[in-house]
Amino acid sequence: MVVASRVYSALVHWPIRDRAGGIITTAVTNIDVHDLSRSARTYDLAGFFVVTPIAAQQELVGAILGHWRHGPGLRRVPERTDALSLCEVVPTLRAAREAVLAREGVAPVVVVTAARSAGVTPKTFAAERADLVGRTAPTLVVFGTGHGLAQSVLDEADILLEPIAGRANYNHLSVRAACAITLDRLFV
Amino acid sequence: MVVASRVYSALVHWPIRDRAGGIITTAVTNIDVHDLSRSARTYDLAGFFVVTPIAAQQELVGAILGHWRHGPGLRRVPERTDALSLCEVVPTLRAAREAVLAREGVAPVVVVTAARSAGVTPKTFAAERADLVGRTAPTLVVFGTGHGLAQSVLDEADILLEPIAGRANYNHLSVRAACAITLDRLFV
Repeated sequence: MVVASRVYSALVHWPIRDRAGGIITTAVTNIDVHDLSRSARTYDLAGFFVVTPIAAQQELVGAILGHWRHGPGLRRVPERTDALSLCEVVPTLRAAREAVLAREGVAPVVVVTAARSAGVTPKTFAAERADLVGRTAPTLVVFGTGHGLAQSVLDEADILLEPIAGRANYNHLSVRAACAITLDRLFV
Repeated sequence: MVVASRVYSALVHWPIRDRAGGIITTAVTNIDVHDLSRSARTYDLAGFFVVTPIAAQQELVGAILGHWRHGPGLRRVPERTDALSLCEVVPTLRAAREAVLAREGVAPVVVVTAARSAGVTPKTFAAERADLVGRTAPTLVVFGTGHGLAQSVLDEADILLEPIAGRANYNHLSVRAACAITLDRLFV
């Protein structure tokens, strides 16, 4: 399958819903940075943004990336360096969009994901997959942490993807699994 | 899609290949126990085995499961209890097969996964997906840690699944991502 547009992913740590629906900032998880970078690399994405407004967390991600890009990790696991070279930390989702705009010359179509039904009729994976082929603008696929992206993020997006339905009535995949399945459904 | 057979998954920590092809025992990772349980629950699997021969690691998994099944985790995140109720720790892959045999009355068809080409022509996801519908025996889908399942495990299996190909020439997904994609391709 040929995809014309350049695709980016983003993992958002604010604004995020907690269990009760309140808005929180989640902590960056080291393994998320690795797993989502590796999945982005596997599906030939152009970049992966870790979104956190907290300076100390930005520094943490910078330290992880430094270890693997220039430090001991580069010699020990070079294919990890390859994946993590796609990763960039930004303070907000808006900053991620602006980074794509700066790189591509065109603002990205923002595609958000949600495990729950979010009020509007979502777009199917099949429909988005078909549209990606002819899209000339870049695409930014956005994943949430915690209990999912805040409603404000869903409201501002261009496209809301349908929830991943497995075979059971259970929608609590890890974001590492959900990202992998989403990329596989859209790009293979 | 209706799948007739009962399906189980297993995550193997021995015998595993290291980078150089030697045989090692890997350490159990907490987040793997969670992620693969959640994926198993999402795709309605009948059980998920963590395979490790090391007693201290078996105790570790037991402590994780106890926390979430009966301890504080049950009250805080009940849907995690739901997923982890599928998980059982066993010392060897043979023990996992025997546990399935004891539960189902029939030995499982053992399906192994590998990121690399392993000498024989692997079975495609589409072919295995089609065969699952009519299979009356249970199925055990086996995932490796480290640099993959030892050749002896691949040799003893009934079916070797094809590697997951993304869009790039890069086959270093995390096992959390690979398991999620495999279940999604086989069961949705």
